[in-house]
Amino acid sequence: MSRFLSPEALRLDPYTPGEQPRDQQYIKLNTNESPFPPSPRVLEALSRTEAEKLYLYSDPTCAALNAAIAKRYGLDPGNVISGNGSDEILAFAFRAFCGEGKLVAFADITYGFYEAQAALFGLEAKRVPLREDFSLNVEDYLDFPGAVVIANPNAPTGMAVPVSDIRRLLERDPDRVVIVDEAYVDFGAESCAPLVREYENLLVTQTMSKSRSLAGGRVGFALGSAELIAGLNRVKYSFNPYNVNRLSLLAGAAAVEDEDYFQSCCRTIQKTRAWTTAALEKQGFTVLPSSANFVFAKSDRIPGGELYRKLKENGVLVRWFSKDRIRDFCRITIGSREQMEALAEQIDRLLAGR
Amino acid sequence: MSRFLSPEALRLDPYTPGEQPRDQQYIKLNTNESPFPPSPRVLEALSRTEAEKLYLYSDPTCAALNAAIAKRYGLDPGNVISGNGSDEILAFAFRAFCGEGKLVAFADITYGFYEAQAALFGLEAKRVPLREDFSLNVEDYLDFPGAVVIANPNAPTGMAVPVSDIRRLLERDPDRVVIVDEAYVDFGAESCAPLVREYENLLVTQTMSKSRSLAGGRVGFALGSAELIAGLNRVKYSFNPYNVNRLSLLAGAAAVEDEDYFQSCCRTIQKTRAWTTAALEKQGFTVLPSSANFVFAKSDRIPGGELYRKLKENGVLVRWFSKDRIRDFCRITIGSREQMEALAEQIDRLLAGR
Repeated sequence: MSRFLSPEALRLDPYTPGEQPRDQQYIKLNTNESPFPPSPRVLEALSRTEAEKLYLYSDPTCAALNAAIAKRYGLDPGNVISGNGSDEILAFAFRAFCGEGKLVAFADITYGFYEAQAALFGLEAKRVPLREDFSLNVEDYLDFPGAVVIANPNAPTGMAVPVSDIRRLLERDPDRVVIVDEAYVDFGAESCAPLVREYENLLVTQTMSKSRSLAGGRVGFALGSAELIAGLNRVKYSFNPYNVNRLSLLAGAAAVEDEDYFQSCCRTIQKTRAWTTAALEKQGFTVLPSSANFVFAKSDRIPGGELYRKLKENGVLVRWFSKDRIRDFCRITIGSREQMEALAEQIDRLLAGR
Repeated sequence: MSRFLSPEALRLDPYTPGEQPRDQQYIKLNTNESPFPPSPRVLEALSRTEAEKLYLYSDPTCAALNAAIAKRYGLDPGNVISGNGSDEILAFAFRAFCGEGKLVAFADITYGFYEAQAALFGLEAKRVPLREDFSLNVEDYLDFPGAVVIANPNAPTGMAVPVSDIRRLLERDPDRVVIVDEAYVDFGAESCAPLVREYENLLVTQTMSKSRSLAGGRVGFALGSAELIAGLNRVKYSFNPYNVNRLSLLAGAAAVEDEDYFQSCCRTIQKTRAWTTAALEKQGFTVLPSSANFVFAKSDRIPGGELYRKLKENGVLVRWFSKDRIRDFCRITIGSREQMEALAEQIDRLLAGR
C-alpha cells in the first residue's frame, strides 16, 4: 500500500458498486435503477436556456429543490437537505451524529455502504445480526447507546420494518438519532416521513435514483427536525458547499412535482415485482417478501454465485454478494415486464439442464 | 449547540460561500464565475437524448471524462480523478494523505476551505504566514514534515508561485505529498500539470468552474501519479462512488475538448483584468499582481468593508473577508468589460464624495 496514505485512509473499506459495463448490451438488473425514463417534466426543465446558465454556481442552499421536497412531504424547507445522491447525505449524517462517544449500529446484512462510511470517519460500528429469516428485531436496538441506521425496506433483502418499531426506537431514547434510509420505500413500505414533525431525533433519507428515475442525476435528500438538518449542513459546508449542480437541482424539483408519473411508475414496478416473484417461485426459488424494486431470491438447484455468472454469460446482469448468510441469494432488480420475462426464460434454460 | 452532534461535528469550521442572492439583479463579481456561457459544444452534449438516460447511473469510474482530461494534459487516464467540483477532490486529498502522523501545512492567507476541510477530518494544520507583500516563501515549507497545500495562483490574492519553487518542495522530500490547487491557473500562472510525470508526490487539482464556464455543473479534477490517484479513489469509494452525475460528465468532457473556446475566454479575461487593474490604480487603489480571474485591491480612501457594503447598496457584489491582514482589501472578480466599467463608475461615484 502507498507510503503516501494516511493511517485513516489505510483503514478504509471502500464500497464496490454494481458493475456498470460499457462493452456489451446487458439486461441490467444489478443496480436497482428504474426501467422508466425521467418524468417529461424533468426533460422540459433541462432546457437549453438552463444549460447556458452553467457558468454560474448552483444555489448552495438548494432552496427551490428543498421547497419542492418540503411541499411534497408536508414539511417546512428547514426540514430538508438535498445532496449529491443519498450516499452523500448518509456520509454527512455519519459525521454529524457519530464519533467520539457517539456510537452507531446497523444490521449485519444491510446496505454495504454504511460499513464504508463508518470506516471513513473512523467509527466503531456495531453490526446487529438480523433474525434467521432476515427480519429485523427492534428489541436488539432499543438499549443500544448510540445512533441507529435502519434501511427500510432493507437492502439487499427488500424486507420492511413496521413504522411502529421505528417509533419504539425513537421514543426509548430521545437523545439518540435514528436514521431511516428509505431509498426503496416508495415501492411498498410505510414511510417515516410523517413522523419528522413528531420526533426531533428522526432523520429520514431518500433518493431520487430509484422511484423517480434520476439515478444519473444524483439527487438525494433527508427529512428531519431543523436541529438535525442544521447539523448536516454544518458538515456539508465543511465538505462541499455547492454540492448539487444546477441541472440536478432543476431535475429533482421537476421530478418531485410530477406526482402522477411517480405513482404510475411505482405501481408498475409493484405489479412487475408480483409477476417476477410468482415466476421465480414457480421455478422453485425462495423469494424474500420484498417492498423494494428488487427481489432477493435463492434456489436449491443452483448456487447464487453460479446463477450470477451464468446469467451474465447470457447477457443478464444481477447482483451477487459473496458474503456469509446471503451467498446463496441473488439480488434482482425489477425492470420492465419484458426484461423480467427474458430473465425468467434464461433461468428456465439454466435449470433445464439440471 | 445541538445535543445530537458528535464532538467532531462540534469542532467543524464550516466555510461561508460568497453570497448567491436571488432577490435582486446584481453585477455579480463575488464568486469568481466566468462571465461567458459554457462552450457551444457543452450545450450540444447536453441533448434531450442524454437527459432521457438519467434513469441510469452515471459511470462511477468517470472513464470518458478522465480520458478527455488526460488527453488534454498529455497524461494517462490513470493519472486523473474527476469530482463534484474540485472542493470534493480536495476533501478526498485531505483524507487520503493527511491524518495521524501526516501533518498538513498551508498559508495563513489562502482559500478558506482548506481550514474547513482540515477540521472535517480532525487534522492539525500548520498555517504558514505569507510574506508582508503576500508572496509565498517556499523556504518556509522545505523542512515541514508533512503534506503541503499551495493554491497557485493563490486566493484571494491572485499571486502566483514559480514552478521552480514547487519543484524544490517536491524534491526536498519525495515522501511528502504536495497538493497544488490550480483553480485559477489558466488565467496566467504556470501549471504544474506537466510535472505529474516526473514526481510521484505531486497532486495538481483543477476546476472547470472558472476558465471553462461550468461553475454550475460542478466538475473538478486532479492530476497525479497513479499511486496518488488510487489513494483518492479509495476515499471516493468510501464516500460516494457515483460522485459525478451523467450530464456533468458529458459537459466536462465537451468543455475540455473545446480548446479554442477555452483559450479565447482566458485571453479575454486577461485583457479585461489589465483594463480593470489600470482603472483601479488610476483611482488610487493598490492592486496585487494577479494571475487569476479576480483582483485583490485596497484603497486608502475607503476601508474594504465599507467599499463592499457601498458597492452592494449600488448593485455590485464583490467579496470582502473580515480577517486580519486582508480586511482592507476587496476581492473583485473579472467579469465582462461592461461589468468592469460599471464597477469603475460606481467606485468613481463613491470616492467623489470624499
